[in-house]
Formats: sequence, structure tokens, C-alpha cells
Amino acid sequence: MVLLPSKNALSLATGLKQRRAKLARLINYPVILWSGSPLGRNFSANKYPFRSSSHFLYFAGIPLPNAAIYLKEGRLELYLDNPPPSATLWHGETPDRAEIGEAIGADAVYPLNELSVKTPGAATIAVQDSVTYQQQCQLLNRFVPLSHETTGIDLELARAIVKLRSHHDDLALQELRQASSVSVKAHQAGMAATSKAKSEAEIRSGMEGVIIASNMTCAYNSIVTVRGEVLHNETYQNPLQPGDLLLADVGAETPNGWAADITRTWAVSGKFSSTQKDIYEVVLQAHDDCIAKIEPGVEYQDIHLLAAEIITRGLVDLGILKGNVEDLVAMDAHALFFPHGVGHLLGLDVHDMEDLGDEAGYETGRSRSDRFGLSYLRLNRPLQPGMLVTIEPGFYQVPAILNHPDFRHKYRHLVNWERLAQFKDVKGIRIEDDVLVTDFGTEVLTADLPTKIEDMEKLVL
Amino acid sequence: MVLLPSKNALSLATGLKQRRAKLARLINYPVILWSGSPLGRNFSANKYPFRSSSHFLYFAGIPLPNAAIYLKEGRLELYLDNPPPSATLWHGETPDRAEIGEAIGADAVYPLNELSVKTPGAATIAVQDSVTYQQQCQLLNRFVPLSHETTGIDLELARAIVKLRSHHDDLALQELRQASSVSVKAHQAGMAATSKAKSEAEIRSGMEGVIIASNMTCAYNSIVTVRGEVLHNETYQNPLQPGDLLLADVGAETPNGWAADITRTWAVSGKFSSTQKDIYEVVLQAHDDCIAKIEPGVEYQDIHLLAAEIITRGLVDLGILKGNVEDLVAMDAHALFFPHGVGHLLGLDVHDMEDLGDEAGYETGRSRSDRFGLSYLRLNRPLQPGMLVTIEPGFYQVPAILNHPDFRHKYRHLVNWERLAQFKDVKGIRIEDDVLVTDFGTEVLTADLPTKIEDMEKLVL
Repeated sequence: MVLLPSKNALSLATGLKQRRAKLARLINYPVILWSGSPLGRNFSANKYPFRSSSHFLYFAGIPLPNAAIYLKEGRLELYLDNPPPSATLWHGETPDRAEIGEAIGADAVYPLNELSVKTPGAATIAVQDSVTYQQQCQLLNRFVPLSHETTGIDLELARAIVKLRSHHDDLALQELRQASSVSVKAHQAGMAATSKAKSEAEIRSGMEGVIIASNMTCAYNSIVTVRGEVLHNETYQNPLQPGDLLLADVGAETPNGWAADITRTWAVSGKFSSTQKDIYEVVLQAHDDCIAKIEPGVEYQDIHLLAAEIITRGLVDLGILKGNVEDLVAMDAHALFFPHGVGHLLGLDVHDMEDLGDEAGYETGRSRSDRFGLSYLRLNRPLQPGMLVTIEPGFYQVPAILNHPDFRHKYRHLVNWERLAQFKDVKGIRIEDDVLVTDFGTEVLTADLPTKIEDMEKLVL
Repeated sequence: MVLLPSKNALSLATGLKQRRAKLARLINYPVILWSGSPLGRNFSANKYPFRSSSHFLYFAGIPLPNAAIYLKEGRLELYLDNPPPSATLWHGETPDRAEIGEAIGADAVYPLNELSVKTPGAATIAVQDSVTYQQQCQLLNRFVPLSHETTGIDLELARAIVKLRSHHDDLALQELRQASSVSVKAHQAGMAATSKAKSEAEIRSGMEGVIIASNMTCAYNSIVTVRGEVLHNETYQNPLQPGDLLLADVGAETPNGWAADITRTWAVSGKFSSTQKDIYEVVLQAHDDCIAKIEPGVEYQDIHLLAAEIITRGLVDLGILKGNVEDLVAMDAHALFFPHGVGHLLGLDVHDMEDLGDEAGYETGRSRSDRFGLSYLRLNRPLQPGMLVTIEPGFYQVPAILNHPDFRHKYRHLVNWERLAQFKDVKGIRIEDDVLVTDFGTEVLTADLPTKIEDMEKLVL
């Protein structure tokens, strides 16, 4: 069922008009964006919760299944079929095309089958679901390249959309703040649930329960684990042991699709061991210093390299790495323990616009590095006001890396393996916040959630 | 990540072997079943939680993305690619093909690309996701009909699978009992959360929180609403008012895919009004009498008609309907207030095997009735031991029905509209349990959850 915005309907329509006016300044041919179709799970009537295409959401504002918008010269036409009369039996009274069009400030509304006359010469972005994708190709009467390999006018459109979506307007920030606020509460609830929880699943329940109670969804599959070294761990079956650290990477998404992305790592018992504390403070230093360095004009890759440097220095000070910090970073020794990038763009997608490949994350002309310590960096652009990025340094003891013969050999003189063995109770630590680049520096949208050990301890105990 | 079963690995392999031996007695050609692929949500790396095809799960036991099984003469070959070495970085150590094959009692395991030599003459069922569906057509080198319109050997396979999956074996019952047990706890938690909750979303959170904490998922999108008359209401934004009834239709699914399906309707204040109580008791009577009537050999449609009769009699007694009960049911007057079927098959799918259209629900040769009061009936077969069905009579005041000019005219002498107006605080009531047909009668898997007003009141207050 489509829910229309209530109080801020005017500002929604106004904000959306501004977005399409901006698009019209960048693109002088028509654009059609499809929302996508709900996908069947085990059978067609049992659907996954519907998620509109993010590009559609950006210009249409609200999630409408099986809809398309036609954008030209700042005008928006909504193409959407009214629900059949039988739908009121199952779904109650739902707003019709005209009411929805008014709420989003459409200039005209039409049934979906009238879209076909508008398709010649239109640019688009391929949606995720292959049923709608086939409709795109059929209606446009041409091959539509997949979204991460766009060409021609579709690529120009993608680049124009990247320009717009990279700089969040007030409408976006309103949603992003809501997502952040609920995500902060979810993490607080996770900490509060820890003392009584017996499994990862119970902490996850406490966290996602806040998101569900707030009428939001998870922006991505939560990671809630005592095995933080498994970077994309999406199972929750481990029991909690008193000496464990728990890593929780959980973020909410508003009903209109805007995301937050927060990670905290806290002690199951409330108390960090001295080794856990030592490493945690290194990661926290990287987190704090990276955020402090953010301002317009700074290269995001330099933020990443700053994190690498601070983590390396910390590990040298702890006797885990040996040598000169600069040389160690140049040799990617940090990546033995911090193998991912320091963060990414955040917006309608948790990795914002990642459907476009590196088109959003990488400045035109730049591409991924082959270096072990840089290849996973998702963002390589100079920062500009209105960009929202995550800052998420980490430390992990990943057996697949640390036991890999090539790495053991390459770094044999640079790692004090015996010293490292003393830190075996530190499996994975990550600290992640959502940082808005402002005209003069930063605003941390997730700043209400503590990062200091003693502050987290108060919430856990 | 694939989780292998721990304690009951032996019984899993044994149970699965029995299933394929049974299939071999019904089908003498090879069968290939695909599990399906994880689906991207807003971008390809941000996936919906993976759900294997149910037919695959029935014979393979555990959810394996991008896998296929080849069944012939009681043997099972598993076709699955081992995770690439880089996967250990992101997903940790995962079991390989051989370990998985052993857990499910496979006779042989192969990489996926070796499947192509086995495809000639094989029957299959189309999966839900269109990417895998295209692979099915390509590998089998023929058009594979969609699952609800199978033909030829695929239809024979579908019918054989219906025979097996309609009668739950011990392995299935073990899973179904777990799903029921967690779903009962979820509803208890929903009732317990009511007194402090301010919105539908908060009660939903309490209920789904139990499912998440138990490492299960929702078998379908939950309905948790004070507007129970909206039959498929999947929004949760309404505030709770003291005079409201809350209808919650929430069921858990085990990690291996087995479902429960429970509905309860309770008073937000704990206390039913006298009008709410009057109608609730009618629906409860229908629920109880229908369950009491279930035994092998009974036609499920007769259970449905019994519910219709009891609801009709109750409404006549309350002065809402006027006339002879038998005549009223024959005229479908009950369907003004009870417009859906009394239940459906339950198993791996919440509407079990509904991907096959009515192949599972309807005895061969039978088809849906045109009658208003029968057309939504999803099950029309004689009951047999091992079948699991829901029993879910209801009463709803659906404006789209009660205000429809045709119905107002047709039933103008049979409904006392003034009397009905006195029941305006009864928007929607449903009471649903999961009932196993046994050799001698029934076992209600969800019997631990109260249905009586006074018992629910104790949990709410």
C-alpha cells in the first residue's frame, strides 16, 4: 500500500521540483526512470518487502511499485496504473494516481501503457529486477546497458545523477537525520540488551526491534557478531562469551529509502580486556582523526591513508608491527589488519549509487588501485559540501590473511607474530559514523552514539 | 554463509534419502531442481536475505544459493561451486561442496558447470527468480513453463512433489514444530507488548523481535493492525486507541525454510467491548468447531462451509443477518463478513506449494468455484494424515464489500443494517491455528497460544 506523506507534502513536492530543475540544467533530453516490481520470495504472492530503485526515489520521493517517471525540462510525468477495484478488498482504500501525483508535485499523470509514446530518445538507468529491466529494453526499443556499465546518453544521465545525489539537499538531509537518529537508538538498545542476551541473535533482535518499531527497515543485512573478523558475517548463531567483543554494523532506512550505517564494537561483559582496550584505542584514534581531517577539498583517499597511518603507528607502538610507519603503509602492512576502505558515500543506498559501479565513488579518470591496501577503497574523490560519507576504520585478525603463505612471507620481518599472539582476544573491531561534509568542516549525524569505552560500558552494564 | 546442521546431521541425511526414494517410486526420469540466486535489493551487493526454492529445499534440506540437485532413481547429486578463496576474507571459513554433500547425504558432488551433461530428458520446476529461470531454460535447452502452468514431465513431477510434500514426514514435522513454537512465543510477546505500545509498529517489533532472536525469519510479511478489515494490510503506522482490536497475523520460518502461520485478535486495552466479545465468540466457535471436525477423509471444503454456517448462525443470533442459516450460506451471505477461505496447506511455504497454482490445493479435476463465498478457498481436497492446514475463520467489515451497490441490493432483505451499525467497533477479527491431520484426528501445533478472551487478557494486562 502506498502511504502518502502527511505534514510535509508541500516541502516534498517543492524539494522534488528543485531536483528535477537541477537535472534539466545538466541534461537536455528526456529521462525515464522505472521504480521496479515487487519480487516473489518462495512464490509469487509472497513478496520480499518492496524497495524502489534509488534513482526513481530520488526524483519521485516515495516508493511506488510498478511506476515510471518521465522527466523533461524540469517537468515530471508520473506513469502508474490505478489499483483495480478488487484491491480495496485486500489493501483498503489506496490513493489513486492523481492523489499521488499531487503529493509529489507531478505535472501530469497517466496510466502506464501511455508511456510507450514517450520513449524515443529517452535516457534511463537499468533497474535491479530483471522483469522490469526487460520492460525497459522493450519500451525503449534498444539494449539498455546494465547500471554498472552504462554508455552513451545513459552514461551522461548517470553522471548527472551522481552530481545531484552526491550533494544532499534539505529534503535528503531531513530523511538522513531520521535514519541516523533511529540507528543510534538501535545501537543503544543493542548495548542495553547485551547483559541479558545469550546469543548474537538476541542482540540483533534488540537492535532491529527499534528499527521495526520506528516503521523503518534495515538499510542492509545487519552484522551482529562476536566474530568481527568475518567481515560480511550475516549469521547470528554464536553464543556470547564473557571475554568476547561484539561488533554490530546495523543501519536503518526510512520508508522513502534513505539510509544510515553505523558500527560499534563493545565488550559482551561491558569490560574490555587490556589487549582489547589497546587495539580499540588505536582504531578510535584513527576514527577521530579521520573525522577531524574532513573538510571540503580534502581527498577522501588521503583520509583513508591517514587511517592506515594511525593504525600502523598504533600497532608499531604496541610492538605488533616493526619499522618506520611511512614505509609500512607504503608496503600495505596496515592492510594485514585493516583490509577494507575507510568508508564510502551514503545516501539512498548504503553504498550510495554503487549500482553505477565506481561512477559515483571515483572521480572521472580515476580507477581502483591494484595495491592490497587501496583496492577496496570505494570512494576516491575530493570531498565537497553536502557529501555524506562513512568513516569506519577497523582492526581484524582474519585467518585467511594472516595465515596466507604469501603474506607470511612478504611481511615476515615486519610483524612480530609472537607479540601479535598476545592479542588473540581481539578478533574484529570497527567504529563507524556517518559524517556530513559542510561548508566549513563536518557534522557527524551519528554523534549521539558513544564511541568511548567507558561510555559504552555504562550502556551495557 | 552456509550453516551445516550440527546435532541432527545424520537424521537430515537419512530423512532426505527417504524423500528421494519416495520420489523415485513416482517418477522414472531424472529431475533437476535449482535453488535460485540471491536477489539484489537497491544494488547488486545489497541482497535480499536469500530464500531457496522450496522444492529444492525439500530434497536438499538446507538453503544453498546458486546450487542444483540432480535426482535419479533415489540418488542425489549436488552441483555447487566451491566459494572462491577470496570468500574466506569476507565470509570466513565456509564448508566446501564435499562437506555440504556429506551433510545432506549426497551420492556425489560436482561443480555447477558439470550439470550440463545431465540435463537431457530431465524434468524441473521453474524457480521464482528470473535469472535462475533463464539458466534453467538454457541448460535444459527447452522452454520451461512457469511453475503455475507446468506441462508434460514437469507437470508429472509437480504432481509427484505435491504427493510427497502434502504429507509431512518426521523431518518436516520437527521443523514445523520449531516454527510453531517460536511463532507462539512471538504472539505472546505481542500481547505482552501491547500495554506499553503506542503504535502497530511497536507491537510488530515485539513479535518479530522474538523471531529474530530465535534465528528465524518471518514466513511472510506480517499483518499487525487495528484495521483488521484491510485483509492484506502491510503497513504499521496506525496509533493504538483504547477501544481498538488488534489483529496480528505473524509466523516464523526456520532457517531451513519451514513455516508457521498464526493469527490472533486481542483488545488493545485488554478488555473487549460487549459487541467485540459477541462477534469474537462467534468466530471462536467457528474456529473450534472446524478444528474438531478435522479428520482423515473429511473434505476441506466442508470445513470451510462449516465455518460459514457457524458464522452465519452467530450473526443471525445477534440480529445482524435475517433468515434461515442454510439459505443464507447458499446465498453466500456469510461472505459479506467472511470473504476468504477458512485456510490452506502449510509447509515449506505459508501457502504450501502455491507456486504450482492450484495443483497442490485442489484435487485433480477440481477447480475454483465462481461463488462469492467459495472462490477464495485455497484448499479443496479430502484431508489425509500428515497434512498440515490452517484454520482461520474471520469476521470483517470491509467497506468495499458492505458499501458495494450490488451487494447492498442483493442482500438488502437479509442484513439488518441498523443492527450492524451497533457493531462498528468490530472492524476485523481472525483466529488462526496450524492443524496437523493425524491418523485419528488432529494435533494443533499452535495450541499453546490462547484463543479465549480471558486468557489473552491476562497476557495483555
